[in-house]
Amino acid sequence: MKKKVVVAFSGGLDTSFTVMYLAKEKGYEVYAACANTGGFSEEQLKQNEENAYKLGATKYVTIDVTKEYYEKSLKYMIFGNVLRNGTYPISVSSERIFQALAIARYANEIGADAIAHGSTGAGNDQIRFDMTFLVLAPNVEIITLTRDMALTRDYEINYLKEHGFEADFTKLKYSYNVGLWGTSICGGEILDSTQGLPESAYLKQVEKTGSEELRIEFKNGEIYAVNGEVFEDKIAAIQKVEEIGAAYGIGRDMHVGDTIIGIKGRVGFEAAAPMLIIGAHRFLEKYTLSKWQQYWKDQVANWYGMFLHESQYLEPVMRDIEAMLQESQRNVNGTAILELRPLSFSTVGVDSKDDLVKTKFGEYGEMQKGWTAEDAKGFIKVTSTPLRVYYNNHKI
Amino acid sequence: MKKKVVVAFSGGLDTSFTVMYLAKEKGYEVYAACANTGGFSEEQLKQNEENAYKLGATKYVTIDVTKEYYEKSLKYMIFGNVLRNGTYPISVSSERIFQALAIARYANEIGADAIAHGSTGAGNDQIRFDMTFLVLAPNVEIITLTRDMALTRDYEINYLKEHGFEADFTKLKYSYNVGLWGTSICGGEILDSTQGLPESAYLKQVEKTGSEELRIEFKNGEIYAVNGEVFEDKIAAIQKVEEIGAAYGIGRDMHVGDTIIGIKGRVGFEAAAPMLIIGAHRFLEKYTLSKWQQYWKDQVANWYGMFLHESQYLEPVMRDIEAMLQESQRNVNGTAILELRPLSFSTVGVDSKDDLVKTKFGEYGEMQKGWTAEDAKGFIKVTSTPLRVYYNNHKI
Amino acid sequence: MKKKVVVAFSGGLDTSFTVMYLAKEKGYEVYAACANTGGFSEEQLKQNEENAYKLGATKYVTIDVTKEYYEKSLKYMIFGNVLRNGTYPISVSSERIFQALAIARYANEIGADAIAHGSTGAGNDQIRFDMTFLVLAPNVEIITLTRDMALTRDYEINYLKEHGFEADFTKLKYSYNVGLWGTSICGGEILDSTQGLPESAYLKQVEKTGSEELRIEFKNGEIYAVNGEVFEDKIAAIQKVEEIGAAYGIGRDMHVGDTIIGIKGRVGFEAAAPMLIIGAHRFLEKYTLSKWQQYWKDQVANWYGMFLHESQYLEPVMRDIEAMLQESQRNVNGTAILELRPLSFSTVGVDSKDDLVKTKFGEYGEMQKGWTAEDAKGFIKVTSTPLRVYYNNHKI
Amino acid sequence: MKKKVVVAFSGGLDTSFTVMYLAKEKGYEVYAACANTGGFSEEQLKQNEENAYKLGATKYVTIDVTKEYYEKSLKYMIFGNVLRNGTYPISVSSERIFQALAIARYANEIGADAIAHGSTGAGNDQIRFDMTFLVLAPNVEIITLTRDMALTRDYEINYLKEHGFEADFTKLKYSYNVGLWGTSICGGEILDSTQGLPESAYLKQVEKTGSEELRIEFKNGEIYAVNGEVFEDKIAAIQKVEEIGAAYGIGRDMHVGDTIIGIKGRVGFEAAAPMLIIGAHRFLEKYTLSKWQQYWKDQVANWYGMFLHESQYLEPVMRDIEAMLQESQRNVNGTAILELRPLSFSTVGVDSKDDLVKTKFGEYGEMQKGWTAEDAKGFIKVTSTPLRVYYNNHKI
Repeated sequence: MKKKVVVAFSGGLDTSFTVMYLAKEKGYEVYAACANTGGFSEEQLKQNEENAYKLGATKYVTIDVTKEYYEKSLKYMIFGNVLRNGTYPISVSSERIFQALAIARYANEIGADAIAHGSTGAGNDQIRFDMTFLVLAPNVEIITLTRDMALTRDYEINYLKEHGFEADFTKLKYSYNVGLWGTSICGGEILDSTQGLPESAYLKQVEKTGSEELRIEFKNGEIYAVNGEVFEDKIAAIQKVEEIGAAYGIGRDMHVGDTIIGIKGRVGFEAAAPMLIIGAHRFLEKYTLSKWQQYWKDQVANWYGMFLHESQYLEPVMRDIEAMLQESQRNVNGTAILELRPLSFSTVGVDSKDDLVKTKFGEYGEMQKGWTAEDAKGFIKVTSTPLRVYYNNHKI
Repeated sequence: MKKKVVVAFSGGLDTSFTVMYLAKEKGYEVYAACANTGGFSEEQLKQNEENAYKLGATKYVTIDVTKEYYEKSLKYMIFGNVLRNGTYPISVSSERIFQALAIARYANEIGADAIAHGSTGAGNDQIRFDMTFLVLAPNVEIITLTRDMALTRDYEINYLKEHGFEADFTKLKYSYNVGLWGTSICGGEILDSTQGLPESAYLKQVEKTGSEELRIEFKNGEIYAVNGEVFEDKIAAIQKVEEIGAAYGIGRDMHVGDTIIGIKGRVGFEAAAPMLIIGAHRFLEKYTLSKWQQYWKDQVANWYGMFLHESQYLEPVMRDIEAMLQESQRNVNGTAILELRPLSFSTVGVDSKDDLVKTKFGEYGEMQKGWTAEDAKGFIKVTSTPLRVYYNNHKI
Repeated sequence: MKKKVVVAFSGGLDTSFTVMYLAKEKGYEVYAACANTGGFSEEQLKQNEENAYKLGATKYVTIDVTKEYYEKSLKYMIFGNVLRNGTYPISVSSERIFQALAIARYANEIGADAIAHGSTGAGNDQIRFDMTFLVLAPNVEIITLTRDMALTRDYEINYLKEHGFEADFTKLKYSYNVGLWGTSICGGEILDSTQGLPESAYLKQVEKTGSEELRIEFKNGEIYAVNGEVFEDKIAAIQKVEEIGAAYGIGRDMHVGDTIIGIKGRVGFEAAAPMLIIGAHRFLEKYTLSKWQQYWKDQVANWYGMFLHESQYLEPVMRDIEAMLQESQRNVNGTAILELRPLSFSTVGVDSKDDLVKTKFGEYGEMQKGWTAEDAKGFIKVTSTPLRVYYNNHKI
Repeated sequence: MKKKVVVAFSGGLDTSFTVMYLAKEKGYEVYAACANTGGFSEEQLKQNEENAYKLGATKYVTIDVTKEYYEKSLKYMIFGNVLRNGTYPISVSSERIFQALAIARYANEIGADAIAHGSTGAGNDQIRFDMTFLVLAPNVEIITLTRDMALTRDYEINYLKEHGFEADFTKLKYSYNVGLWGTSICGGEILDSTQGLPESAYLKQVEKTGSEELRIEFKNGEIYAVNGEVFEDKIAAIQKVEEIGAAYGIGRDMHVGDTIIGIKGRVGFEAAAPMLIIGAHRFLEKYTLSKWQQYWKDQVANWYGMFLHESQYLEPVMRDIEAMLQESQRNVNGTAILELRPLSFSTVGVDSKDDLVKTKFGEYGEMQKGWTAEDAKGFIKVTSTPLRVYYNNHKI
């Protein structure tokens, strides 16, 4: 009986080669599985299916985990306003984890002997895949031809061609990873610290001029409506915001940070929806959460983003943090109003029943109703006591 | 012998009234002192001097603490990339502290019986002034006519007019606080959570279109050169960046946050130099500092900004934090390259001898030279051990 | 119709005076309410009732909030291993908040015009009472005779005596606050930084010699059994541990810290149950939680304790933190074994199905089964990469 | 020409075998180097020298880095009150780093081709040695016979005996690592989560009964005097405290925590000096530092201890943290008074010119001079404003 291998299949060169090589040279019964977290189009998935069979797969399956990805990760990234290093919505890395989880479950389901993925030994993705497999499928062998055989693109392309499979695997100047929560861009100017990406490097071009108002309504921290249109399906709401923002080229930036593998790297990205949604959400929180709620949310959410990025989604502390983030959203209700323009946007205002800025106690700097001048003076006197004690004893 | 009062004199309505009222009605010998942290122009200071004497001051003095403000506070705000709530460069609040310190020292120097300032009982500035005076000049009386007498603008204007002093005290739609590190804007739409400021509210209008490159060079975290021009005088460097950025209307935003006095408030601001300098500095740090240096810097700098904003500059912990921020800057050397355009800017790249992205160990995602595929697999195996142990015992 | 006042009645001198004075001199209909969080004995409560009526109260009521105190606060203090400044189980302060909440609810219920409490202007308790009343009963007047009239003990005792009420109000060398979660001790040597408390200052004396094993079992972080005896009633479990530990004089220490009112203060305490329970709970967590769960729990729990101590129980962030603490307890199951002896105890071991130290992957320092020597070397190589990159560029 | 290897030589079985095996079987010119951080006695060092030559070493050298260890690490551990997981003074781990640094420098000095150490693949020490060598001596080969050859004790003992070297390598029930900053104990009951160590497991037995006062004076956070005796040599001061405390069996505990290699482990320890010195230092800080100084010191010091433990001493952030810790000690002056008794001690009081508890502003709970009752009420009113605003809008 043949041994079974599940190949985490994206349709790209490395995983195409892997399917064919394992089927033809290693005698495996190959199950090509494409785990989709929202980054694949219907056409791509259809093409993947066709190609998988052409490449010799016994079975192809698309596993749609978009909803799981939203409910178990993306939702909390919005609650936490997660931007790695202050800029990067960790677009691809968080999706990779949920793809790995889906692949591992599928492997366990069909009783696979091995799982294969196409990552090299140079990057973060190998860690996301390997770690998830080691944890969820500890007795299943992990196969990574690209990493272990140090294969070149030419070798892979030739091998496929010789065995009757041709596709457009031209090496582009840039390599893209398209996901629900943004597209990352590697290669080209990215490899030179002194340079930025040219306009032509972005998949989505600026199509609009002038400016436009965007209203995003949240209920308990989750998107409820976009420009007044209610969305039951949060994925559709995200895609709607993406469509609106991408037309202005919003959300382009460069992430510079530490990889899990230890070196620093740069990666370009375009991520209109994440930037607009997090921008709106964070702005609304400034009106509806207390100072210390914001402080502590930021602390744990920053860590949450780091651990998500660094393949630690399964760390038990992540569940603890999620509980805190969830609880913090009970008053994050209302509409944030943004103004979009080419390449940037502003936060204008919010309309919320939970707005703590609107208060009968007075408006800042204008007129106070919640305390008297004497109260203020007493407050200042007592508040300054630690410093009065200290400087009674020490020089300034 | 007359009692001496030092009036913290800005030339505005409240402090003008205070000078005259204390001189005429209360029989004080009035010392009008204008503490400048870089926000006053030469003309304004000359005008202040003239007016002070017209209002009945015995003596007027300008105390220039711009350099002290930079060395003891602003420098650390740049080291720490301090933006309150992620946006506000705490423009005016930090300057107020150094004005208060200068006034208190002056009062001690001339043996004043009292210090007067013009703050109301509704805002943060009363706290910054009172606390500093209580600590540095504990035996000097604090006089605050505007706060205690609950004076209206009309009353003050009429009083001044009746006593022969006229000036343009027209109530503007907005009130501005102009400082070295940004201008804050209160009033108007600011008081309505749902609205943003119109273009006309900003003192500096967008004058340029298109885009422009800006290169800021840092040495040990301090600005060294702007577009290749070396600046010994860091204040002049900041003003240069302000000039360049303001022409694009860069650095406009709205701060929404908790006041020291306990309510939430909104304040608009325009702050081109802070946004560009901090943007450049933070970007350079991503290349030159380790992940954990950035993490811990952010932690303490966030607190530093909060305490500076909340009138706790004199808290002893601030000196501890400054020592850490200073030490962290030893490798923050090199040039950050920005691209400016109307209302926004991008970080393009950096050119630095301390760039840790450029490394002989490999480029991210490309080719590794510092480890083998086997090393990577060993790393992943050991790194996943805590999770393997945990999930051996618990369900996912 | 007479105005109604609720007096937060402890039976002590200040609140006894307050009841009588408000009834006799101010013509109030006095409702004496004693809110019990577990610190009052049945006898004391009975005595309080009798005395209240003697003092002129229209109505006396004991409000038992022990269970609420446990469910809403104490439970989380155990989850969080909360020891202020590393030592103080914030015995009395957290109880005061729940007493204040109960009093405020009662005042609202009976439509009181005023609430009175016996705190002075020198300490923390005034803040706990006032703040809670300002928030929950914003339109009810707050009366604090001791604070406002600067009354002396003699004056109060004489007044009571003259009006026919006598009780043993002898000023002791120490003043005690007895609560469910510990007893605090003020006065005497406490007021001199160089001195500690003598044996005689403690209410509970060391009665046992030798040593004794104590086994505390937890389920989801809550006490389940003490020495094998299952307790449905967690209050009874705490009292059982207190009884066992107090016989050894365990849990005596001195808290030195910052008061809410701004000065530093010292307070002695004896708190056998808190020290033993938290000691056991924390020890169990070391075996059952991941490193990062412990790290983040400590972060938020430390803040939780500070805010509880500083009268910020109602801050919304406290609910967020509680959610995180609750979630973190899902695996805190098992028995912690302690060894008690006079004045101290040791943590011996734990017996838990969720013990992560017991693992099939190997024992520390002995034999590894989860990785090979080659894996370890690969791990070290990759883990050292950031440092190898850094020191390739910088001197050590 | 023979290749040169430096063996990090402790005199134990593994490194004795390594010296002989590399000299005899692998033809290396062996340099046996014993790096001492204060844990070796003169006798042991002399014995090591003799044995090294007997084992075939070309050269033996003792490298004394005790002072360097104190100045570059131990000092900061005291400043930071570093106790890993709240208990463990990370006795051995921090010493290992400085031993590795010394060995690497020596290897570079003599132009060694290889460095050998005796660690196995199961523990943390291999990481401390390997990482330091990879960073400081990147081109020098690392040899670890015990790890790579999976050698048994019997094999090693037999090999040595056959080649004419005999010593007492009896396997004890426990293995000890004796350092300046404590002794760690592995094996025996340590391997069973439910058990503690018996009295007989400790190297230092309880010799005294009754109680004894200990006074430790600090200047700028460093030990200045012990019981009035001034110590220029801080190492001698530590040894003095150790001698006093060990007679009471103080400082025994069990560390339960996460190893660098990913599993949890237990280790017993006896560390009288660390516990007493840190206990005294922390107690003194409670009197002399502000609340927020203590808060932030704890934050960074906790991380410092973790990184020291986890072989990250060379991480650049450690220098930033050291700068903050150093600055924080400017007021940590005065004498802390402890009371020692068998197996435990209490903090009694402090005598310090920088004591902030002693203040003319009032004593806690007694009499306030720095504010009035009205000030206190104003303070409470304003402090409660955020909650009054919040609960005006939300239910409790």
